[in-house]
Amino acid sequence: MNPAFAPRGSKAEIEEGPAFAPKFDTDGLIAAMAIDSVSREPLMLAYMNAESLRRTLELGEAVYWSRSRQEFWHKGATSGHVQKIVEIRTDCDQDALILVVEQVGAGACHTGRGSCFYRRVVKATNGTPGLEFTGGDRTFDPAAVYGKA
Amino acid sequence: MNPAFAPRGSKAEIEEGPAFAPKFDTDGLIAAMAIDSVSREPLMLAYMNAESLRRTLELGEAVYWSRSRQEFWHKGATSGHVQKIVEIRTDCDQDALILVVEQVGAGACHTGRGSCFYRRVVKATNGTPGLEFTGGDRTFDPAAVYGKA
Repeated sequence: MNPAFAPRGSKAEIEEGPAFAPKFDTDGLIAAMAIDSVSREPLMLAYMNAESLRRTLELGEAVYWSRSRQEFWHKGATSGHVQKIVEIRTDCDQDALILVVEQVGAGACHTGRGSCFYRRVVKATNGTPGLEFTGGDRTFDPAAVYGKA
Repeated sequence: MNPAFAPRGSKAEIEEGPAFAPKFDTDGLIAAMAIDSVSREPLMLAYMNAESLRRTLELGEAVYWSRSRQEFWHKGATSGHVQKIVEIRTDCDQDALILVVEQVGAGACHTGRGSCFYRRVVKATNGTPGLEFTGGDRTFDPAAVYGKA
C-alpha cells in the first residue's frame, strides 16, 4: 500500500473536513514534532517530505527527511532508538504534524538525552539571551550507541 | 533592549554551550511549537524570524512571522488570546523552539478550539489516509471573537 494524500481543497475542507491534505512548503517539507506518548513531553522536531510521510504511515515508525544530509532518516536505524507511531495529528491548516510516539531505547537525542529540548533561553547580564540546562542528564552514552565521540 | 543572538559556533558549542545561537533556515525562519504550560499539550506550530524572536523575548508574549501574510503576527492582537511566555526551549542544534506559554482566553486556534491539533490521521478503507476529529469541541465562537464567519 502506498498511501496518497488528498489534494488541497477549500479553506473549509482543509480546516473542518475528513481529507488528509498535508501542505508541504516550497522545499517540499512539513514540520513534525515528536512527543512522548506517556509523558507527553516534546522529544524532537524534524521535517518530512511526502515520501517520508508515506513511509512513516506504512512502517509505523518515524521516517524523517534530513535537511542537513538531504536523505531519508529512519529514526533509530543506527541507534536502535526507533519511534513507534501511536498517533499522528495535524493542525487546522494541515501544515504541521505531531507524532505521538513510543520512544524505544534510552532517548530521542543524539547527544544522549531523552529529549532534544534540554536547554531554556535565559537573559544574560549583558542583555544577550543565553541558554541554561534544564537538568535533564544524559540517559545514554552517545559514543557507545553511535560508535563515535 | 534589543537582544542579539550569538553567532553559530562549533558543533560542541551549539549542542553543549551556554550561547543562544538560533539557526534560521534559508527563508530566515525557525519553527516554534507552543505548548500549554499547565496541560503540556501542544497548541500550535508557527514560525519566527530573528526580529519576531527578539520581539517575543522583549514583550514576553509570542510574536510569530506569518508565512502566508508575510507580516509580524502578535498572537492574540485581534482575539485577545495572547500567549504569555513562561519558558522558551531550544533543541540540540538550535534550529527549533518550544514556547511554553500561558494561553490567555478560550483557546489558541482561530477555528475556535483550544489547540490547532484537533484531528488525527486514520487509515481509510481505500488505503488513503483520512482525518478523524479527536473530540475537542470548540471552546469559543470564532465569529464572535474575530468578527467574521
